[in-house]
Amino acid sequence: MENIKFDKNGLIPAIIQNSNSGEVLMLAYMNEESYKKTLNTGYTWFYSRSRQELWNKGAVSGNTQKVKEISYDCDGDTLLIKVEQKGPACHTGKKSCFFNRVTPAKSMTMGEVLFTLDDILKDRKTSPVEGSY
Amino acid sequence: MENIKFDKNGLIPAIIQNSNSGEVLMLAYMNEESYKKTLNTGYTWFYSRSRQELWNKGAVSGNTQKVKEISYDCDGDTLLIKVEQKGPACHTGKKSCFFNRVTPAKSMTMGEVLFTLDDILKDRKTSPVEGSY
Repeated sequence: MENIKFDKNGLIPAIIQNSNSGEVLMLAYMNEESYKKTLNTGYTWFYSRSRQELWNKGAVSGNTQKVKEISYDCDGDTLLIKVEQKGPACHTGKKSCFFNRVTPAKSMTMGEVLFTLDDILKDRKTSPVEGSY
Repeated sequence: MENIKFDKNGLIPAIIQNSNSGEVLMLAYMNEESYKKTLNTGYTWFYSRSRQELWNKGAVSGNTQKVKEISYDCDGDTLLIKVEQKGPACHTGKKSCFFNRVTPAKSMTMGEVLFTLDDILKDRKTSPVEGSY
């Protein structure tokens, strides 16, 4: 089975990318069984760490992912799977699961800076950092 | 710090994508310190699980990654970071770490099918599967 390495929990992360748009849709985990099911059926199967069971993406929602290409990385511990995505990939109804943007510190408004500072101060109060004054 | 969740080892996987081409370059892990360094410096910092230390991508090779955009997914346990990649992203000298293609079963030649079958038969002999005959 190529040079793919499952971790000590028997899992490998799989990056799912839209084969047409190049948009990264989600990251999910596969165990050996779901990986083989993906290869054999041509549709993505994952292992749910929370439910501890296999799931066939889109089996319930209809938002299936038809596999177009599978690659693995230089050290064999991550998969990249390009898919033809039917409907939205995210269970929230968004196209991609990555719809939350982190505000770069550089473009923060003064209000955001003060809120962040306030967060840090509260955090330091409850969990003091040695050497910080 | 937004709704980002580090796992029980204090890590979060970060998918690194070329902001110009959309190509997925690599997957690496960040701990809270490397995540903050990434935010503060505008260049990617990771946590090496094998060396157990922070590393600033490209510090040695010069193949740095300038951060253009950071997103996190619906359940907050994966980052997607779009970068301006200088030089190749992979330590092998390849543009992306995902240069190994998995041959889909459907496009296997008869020779490959026989080799795969042979692998499965050997595997079944050494580790029999209940109910399989």
